Amino acid sequence: MTRKLDVGCAQLGPISRSDSRAEVVARLIALLEEGKERGCQLVVFPELALTTFFPRWWLDDQDEIDGFYERQMPSPETQPLFDRARELEVGFCIGYAELDESGPETRRFNTSILVGPDGRIIGKYRKVHLPGHSDQREDWDFQHLEKHYFDASDTGFPVWRAFGGILGMAICNDRRWPETYRVMGLQGVELVMIGYNTPIADPEVPHHDHLQSFHNHIVMQAGAYQNGTFVIAAAKCGQEEGSTMLGQSVIVAPTGEIVAQATSMGDELITARIDLDICADIKNYMFNFEMHRQPQHYGLIVERRGAVPPPLVDQGQG
Amino acid sequence: MTRKLDVGCAQLGPISRSDSRAEVVARLIALLEEGKERGCQLVVFPELALTTFFPRWWLDDQDEIDGFYERQMPSPETQPLFDRARELEVGFCIGYAELDESGPETRRFNTSILVGPDGRIIGKYRKVHLPGHSDQREDWDFQHLEKHYFDASDTGFPVWRAFGGILGMAICNDRRWPETYRVMGLQGVELVMIGYNTPIADPEVPHHDHLQSFHNHIVMQAGAYQNGTFVIAAAKCGQEEGSTMLGQSVIVAPTGEIVAQATSMGDELITARIDLDICADIKNYMFNFEMHRQPQHYGLIVERRGAVPPPLVDQGQG
Repeated sequence: MTRKLDVGCAQLGPISRSDSRAEVVARLIALLEEGKERGCQLVVFPELALTTFFPRWWLDDQDEIDGFYERQMPSPETQPLFDRARELEVGFCIGYAELDESGPETRRFNTSILVGPDGRIIGKYRKVHLPGHSDQREDWDFQHLEKHYFDASDTGFPVWRAFGGILGMAICNDRRWPETYRVMGLQGVELVMIGYNTPIADPEVPHHDHLQSFHNHIVMQAGAYQNGTFVIAAAKCGQEEGSTMLGQSVIVAPTGEIVAQATSMGDELITARIDLDICADIKNYMFNFEMHRQPQHYGLIVERRGAVPPPLVDQGQG
Repeated sequence: MTRKLDVGCAQLGPISRSDSRAEVVARLIALLEEGKERGCQLVVFPELALTTFFPRWWLDDQDEIDGFYERQMPSPETQPLFDRARELEVGFCIGYAELDESGPETRRFNTSILVGPDGRIIGKYRKVHLPGHSDQREDWDFQHLEKHYFDASDTGFPVWRAFGGILGMAICNDRRWPETYRVMGLQGVELVMIGYNTPIADPEVPHHDHLQSFHNHIVMQAGAYQNGTFVIAAAKCGQEEGSTMLGQSVIVAPTGEIVAQATSMGDELITARIDLDICADIKNYMFNFEMHRQPQHYGLIVERRGAVPPPLVDQGQG
């Protein structure tokens, strides 16, 4: 059996602080159209794909801050993307900053949505692993203020039956955490769609900067293999407002093999024809969870948030 | 600060069915002596390092089966290894088949122990993730009968303070599961010692045989990085009783980088001077569990053993 799906991974080059939504949406539509031309049924865009990566700045003007968020989706500014998707019959996944005024308190999320080829929203995911810090760090060239600008996820990691398979979403830092893939793997996920914005410079551990690309790929390759799922990961990359962002967007097979990779630091579509049925080669054998997992020994993973080392009595003689 | 430790990873070439314990112990002692000569304080040996990998056969003769197990550790046959370790003041980790008659029922485990430089046992681990099957598969060239020959672990994944750090153990198939590293990571582990016996031929998914080495390394590199721990992984390898076993034993840094790798398919010692303090570069920042983990969204990892896909109602339109 085969369940072939033609997918695109739409990497975005830099978006400047002054770029309008209309300008960005035009770039997204161009990539969607290229996707159609190349046979894609589904195109994955990056995290926070409608604006510059604003969590790099500590901002005081609430109006300016709110300007980076979407109050509705689609909005008049983003409607053309949904309309074009419907016309082309190409689905997409996209990340954006969400301002939610539906409840008693205004909430802000780092969100992604999955949109069907009919232009309707199939599912929404709100980022679980917000990286960085919530305080201002004045001695840093760039902040990483996601914990300041966004609220904690209330969605966890749902999956959806769509595009003939079982699909899930994750955002940026989520991809580094094995729990992300495992929680979706335990729901049978076959394709995880990820967007990311990863500055290469890490002010806390600058001597690891040269490892950013290696780390980016290895966590997704391991997560794909260990759960028998495809991964599509789209970067926003290049020189954005003076910060160098990692590219190397990839499509990863359930074997962990990279089957397509972007080579530019700009807008670039990479594609693959993937067969969702090959997930079973991993899910039924090496990572047959029902046969091999031993959850009775995994308790600490949910009982404990931080690491607790054993007491300071040396048990050995080393 | 630095906490330097000189470590050795002692890969073993094949052990035949007819090899005596004395012959194998002599090879282990030779590797331990080479370790001493090259400055090692700790040497890691493979899984089931005292015998051939007997779970490849369905055996009926219980006496022959029991001959692959150790009733005591050390025993008269293995005592010379412990004596030499004490004389050399070199600790070691070794895997063996354990026959436990201490309780009302005889139990059999795939076990590893950590031994101090004084020759005394510091800790014992019994394998959690037993791979393979428990039934006889007559059409296969080799079986993988660990679920037949071994009982389920009753140890989980403990860690010990020893050799100036926090050390844990895992065995073979354990290394593929992110839960293995995470449960130890949540106890602050800084060095995971792994032994493995990995046949290259997989009768269930033979078209993945060429990926054995890639998978072997990627799971350990990701596990090391995602928990900020060193990994030492020692293979039993080469042509053993007609089965080709994977080598490429490695020492992996907390960045996920391979810092030493075996290139032979025989007895070979690889070494590294590792600084346990560099674990903090990962543990305090990118994988600062206390700051970034979100266990409230990880429930399925312990609530569910096998994967449960969502209901078969197509939620999308793809």
